[in-house]
Amino acid sequence: MENQNLIYLDNASSTKVDDRVIEEMLPFIRDHYGNPSSVHQAGADAREGLDTSRKRVAHLIGSSPEEIYFTSCGSESNNFALNGLAEANQGKGKHIISSVIEHISILNPLKELNKKGYETTILPVDKEGFINPEDVKNAIRPDTVLISIMHANNEIGTIQKIKEISQIARGAGITFHSDGVATAGIIPVNVNDLGVDAFSFSSQQMYGPKGAAALYVKKGIRIKPFILGGVQEKGRRSGTENVPGIAGFGKACEIAELEMNPINEKLVKLRDKLFKGIADNIKEVTLNGTMEKRLPGNVHVSFKYIEGESIVLFLNMQKIMVATGSSCASQALKVSHVCTSIGLDQATAQGSILFSIGKFNTEAEIERVIEVLPPIIDRLRKMSPLYKG
Amino acid sequence: MENQNLIYLDNASSTKVDDRVIEEMLPFIRDHYGNPSSVHQAGADAREGLDTSRKRVAHLIGSSPEEIYFTSCGSESNNFALNGLAEANQGKGKHIISSVIEHISILNPLKELNKKGYETTILPVDKEGFINPEDVKNAIRPDTVLISIMHANNEIGTIQKIKEISQIARGAGITFHSDGVATAGIIPVNVNDLGVDAFSFSSQQMYGPKGAAALYVKKGIRIKPFILGGVQEKGRRSGTENVPGIAGFGKACEIAELEMNPINEKLVKLRDKLFKGIADNIKEVTLNGTMEKRLPGNVHVSFKYIEGESIVLFLNMQKIMVATGSSCASQALKVSHVCTSIGLDQATAQGSILFSIGKFNTEAEIERVIEVLPPIIDRLRKMSPLYKG
Repeated sequence: MENQNLIYLDNASSTKVDDRVIEEMLPFIRDHYGNPSSVHQAGADAREGLDTSRKRVAHLIGSSPEEIYFTSCGSESNNFALNGLAEANQGKGKHIISSVIEHISILNPLKELNKKGYETTILPVDKEGFINPEDVKNAIRPDTVLISIMHANNEIGTIQKIKEISQIARGAGITFHSDGVATAGIIPVNVNDLGVDAFSFSSQQMYGPKGAAALYVKKGIRIKPFILGGVQEKGRRSGTENVPGIAGFGKACEIAELEMNPINEKLVKLRDKLFKGIADNIKEVTLNGTMEKRLPGNVHVSFKYIEGESIVLFLNMQKIMVATGSSCASQALKVSHVCTSIGLDQATAQGSILFSIGKFNTEAEIERVIEVLPPIIDRLRKMSPLYKG
Repeated sequence: MENQNLIYLDNASSTKVDDRVIEEMLPFIRDHYGNPSSVHQAGADAREGLDTSRKRVAHLIGSSPEEIYFTSCGSESNNFALNGLAEANQGKGKHIISSVIEHISILNPLKELNKKGYETTILPVDKEGFINPEDVKNAIRPDTVLISIMHANNEIGTIQKIKEISQIARGAGITFHSDGVATAGIIPVNVNDLGVDAFSFSSQQMYGPKGAAALYVKKGIRIKPFILGGVQEKGRRSGTENVPGIAGFGKACEIAELEMNPINEKLVKLRDKLFKGIADNIKEVTLNGTMEKRLPGNVHVSFKYIEGESIVLFLNMQKIMVATGSSCASQALKVSHVCTSIGLDQATAQGSILFSIGKFNTEAEIERVIEVLPPIIDRLRKMSPLYKG
């Protein structure tokens, strides 16, 4: 299928790769095919790609290049962080604090750590999706060794009060990790300013390629390796690096840093236009999350009486691509744990849609959605046994 | 640096990507940027790339697509196999059998498993690098739950008697894994014929891109997940898939299957020409490994009195790229554990070089090496305090 005419509004799942990123990748696919661990020139050429990328990736988040560990995806970074930080600190205790709206690549490793004797406190969120920093404070125990709270939620777009939480963690001497897959490259991130000890982020959500991601680990923080083998990534994440993907990731970080502000001005306008268009033209709609601290391109709404899945498929027939629930679990057809955690009842949660607007979207595309969506909702509601219209 | 004029003889570390593989990848970098877990058309387009690749990858090794788990590199496949198979079987026992010449992405996870209470028997090899199947048989204990023996060694090129070993494992009801990074796509591999329960292999050694690899796990064999999160790879290896890399990997498998035989005829000729050229023109050289069952492009030799590192650098100045020791550890400047395990003394091991010939190499290139190498060895020996000339 030609993707030229698609209206792609699923940028939280994966973004179109910026042409400049592709240009950066191609020489590393075609010409610099050496193994970056090799001592000869072909190895050095590949290594240079890694080095350049590491500087750019570090610069985006205000870290030093030595604090960046390349991985293959955000989920790997999250698994690496939780297992590696928990195991490195197990001598001190086995209690971990996290939240109910974390990504499943945090929640599932936590369940696995439970089986290994770790105890977890999973904090609730309020109706807008905020974790109360006071709750973090109150959950701390003498044996707490790790706190992991995401920077912003990938579904409802709520940006957490990470600075307040990190101050609490620091005050108690507890390692603090944050999942920044939804924020790095999208909104400003400075790891020192945020006060995080470890931070996961990924290329494919910031107009970079799939297959490249990173874990920031602050200098001095101990972490156990995730993949054992050679000396790559200081022996903490062995295996030959995905050089083209990492080169592209670096370029995506550089571009994001330079162009973030004007892009976000545009995204906020498009987001608010879409919110208004939906609210003005469709009844019984819930706008989820918060307008206070929200990801710029995030429009998360629940349409009563119908299934999100059906909306996705009807919009798909109009070449409009949107998501229902979390991107990672969307094929599982379950109700999103994020939707239920902000208090939506099962039926409302099921009618939830995430429009995630990206830098390549246009005002005309948003207008098209506002035009196409109301009759689809109307039609689906008329088909629904729950709707009394 | 322009790579056009390089004589690249380090194909065991990483291969040049076939142009047809790059063509396969490009649409998945440029156009089909959707998340393969998304239900809309952009997701389906990406998913189709995964499905096609999974069929091709499976076909290469004679498995079914459902038995293929995509990973990011050979080291990840090996870590996944060892940890996943050991943990899934820990109720039955905690003893693992492996060998001294395994890749470090096997040996290092085994050391980690030791710390977790597993016992390991690390079998020796003979002078040609063969593991004696009888040794495997004798090492089996009532609590043995896993045997991991590599298909062929990536350094000295010795192809193990995997069928004999797998029969022993099967007879004892023990899960058998083999690291096939050096063989899949290079020599014929059929997992049913070999009798393996799990098999690691990688794209970048078969003219595919970096960042894509696989673990074959036979239907019915239990394995614990490696990355926890979404539903990707049946929940055993979560995280958004590196779709372009995987698409390229699939194409590389398809090409390898079709073209392996004529390529290997050529490689064996070039290999034997290089062996002969070295033996005829340089004194005090050891040809390591075996001529009986050897990887087609593998020329592993030890030059007495000098350091392999120096040879690599001098050849590099002539734009000839070769490796010393294992590709993954080559920056560590240590003596290869493989060289010492076949009985080479420290000094001889240190003078070892791996020329790994690939399908893009020509006879003229081999002739150039035979012309350039003897004066380099001569010069280095004259500089060596060990050489009495």
